[in-house]
Amino acid sequence: MTTPVPPSRPDADAETDTRTRLLDSGSELFIEKGFNGCGLSEILRHAGVPKGSFYHYFRSKQDFGVALIERTCAEYEAELTPMLEDPTHSPLERLRRVFEHYREECASDAPTRECLIPKLALETANLCEDMHTAVKGAYRLWADLLAGPIRAGQAIGEIRTDQDATRLADTLVMLWEGATMRMQIDGDTACLENFLTFAFDSVLRPPR
Amino acid sequence: MTTPVPPSRPDADAETDTRTRLLDSGSELFIEKGFNGCGLSEILRHAGVPKGSFYHYFRSKQDFGVALIERTCAEYEAELTPMLEDPTHSPLERLRRVFEHYREECASDAPTRECLIPKLALETANLCEDMHTAVKGAYRLWADLLAGPIRAGQAIGEIRTDQDATRLADTLVMLWEGATMRMQIDGDTACLENFLTFAFDSVLRPPR
Repeated sequence: MTTPVPPSRPDADAETDTRTRLLDSGSELFIEKGFNGCGLSEILRHAGVPKGSFYHYFRSKQDFGVALIERTCAEYEAELTPMLEDPTHSPLERLRRVFEHYREECASDAPTRECLIPKLALETANLCEDMHTAVKGAYRLWADLLAGPIRAGQAIGEIRTDQDATRLADTLVMLWEGATMRMQIDGDTACLENFLTFAFDSVLRPPR
Repeated sequence: MTTPVPPSRPDADAETDTRTRLLDSGSELFIEKGFNGCGLSEILRHAGVPKGSFYHYFRSKQDFGVALIERTCAEYEAELTPMLEDPTHSPLERLRRVFEHYREECASDAPTRECLIPKLALETANLCEDMHTAVKGAYRLWADLLAGPIRAGQAIGEIRTDQDATRLADTLVMLWEGATMRMQIDGDTACLENFLTFAFDSVLRPPR
């Protein structure tokens, strides 16, 4: 993965560009080395930004971590919402398409964005309250987004109704997180096939 | 969690004690701060061991990480094997008892050993080949141990046979890893109830 070099733009956009470059570098380096395994100076060097500028945008490395989690959430939400509300597919089919999309993304370009939040989650769970709160929010958002089509699928009998939608959504997220963790460990995406099989044939399926 | 202070023993055991103290301290500190978030000097201070002694037992921090993963695996195997082979319960019941046991352990003493291997897994996946290999071995061992009673349960019709035992075991491990990750994020064990429900009512259950 390479950091995109922003094209030259009017001065008004220069601030946005610097902030974006910092976040892009942080994302790439934290995925590779972890939050604690990568210092601020390495991020600044990678982004080509002087130290003084960093503190213009962020109060601390942890504040930077929170911004990175929030940006990742906003990107996911923008990407997921149209897929989860797509009227040309049934609710269950929309859910399947979302996870097939992420499986393709993982298969084509690992390690990907999928790895950032769990990595930050485990590294900072006991270390930084603000980042921990942001991580909790990210998982809540992800499950809430999935709960919408799960409810719609329950209403038309495509998805089991003996468990409530929130619990089913939490379980999908748990299974996905376990699968992407395993993907990083094994270095291949076979476990994501396992995810698709069990999520759709076992977890969501109405009892026969 | 506190580091147990070994009682005084004959000289022959002194070496074992020092190595054990180092591993105990490493386990406790890595769970709290992560592998990259905790330096060697902090581990030595915590264990009350001078730096020279460390290099008598381990070539490097990464070598120490590998030893810690291997010790954790050996502990799990010693603890799990009698539970998984217990002839007084059916294979499915043995599996359930194992996970209920870990749920109790997580509920009583979080953060626990359960958190160490996933934490090291994500932090070191791209950083250290030896640790990565040890982590892969840990997940393979864990799934192989579970596959035994899954096969036995399949043979007597307690567990579905439309998926093979290895795949079912991998899925249980994935779901458990996602659940314990979520436990660390949420700071409670409600997600482990979700795990038990879906693992036993959906993933392993024969189609009705």
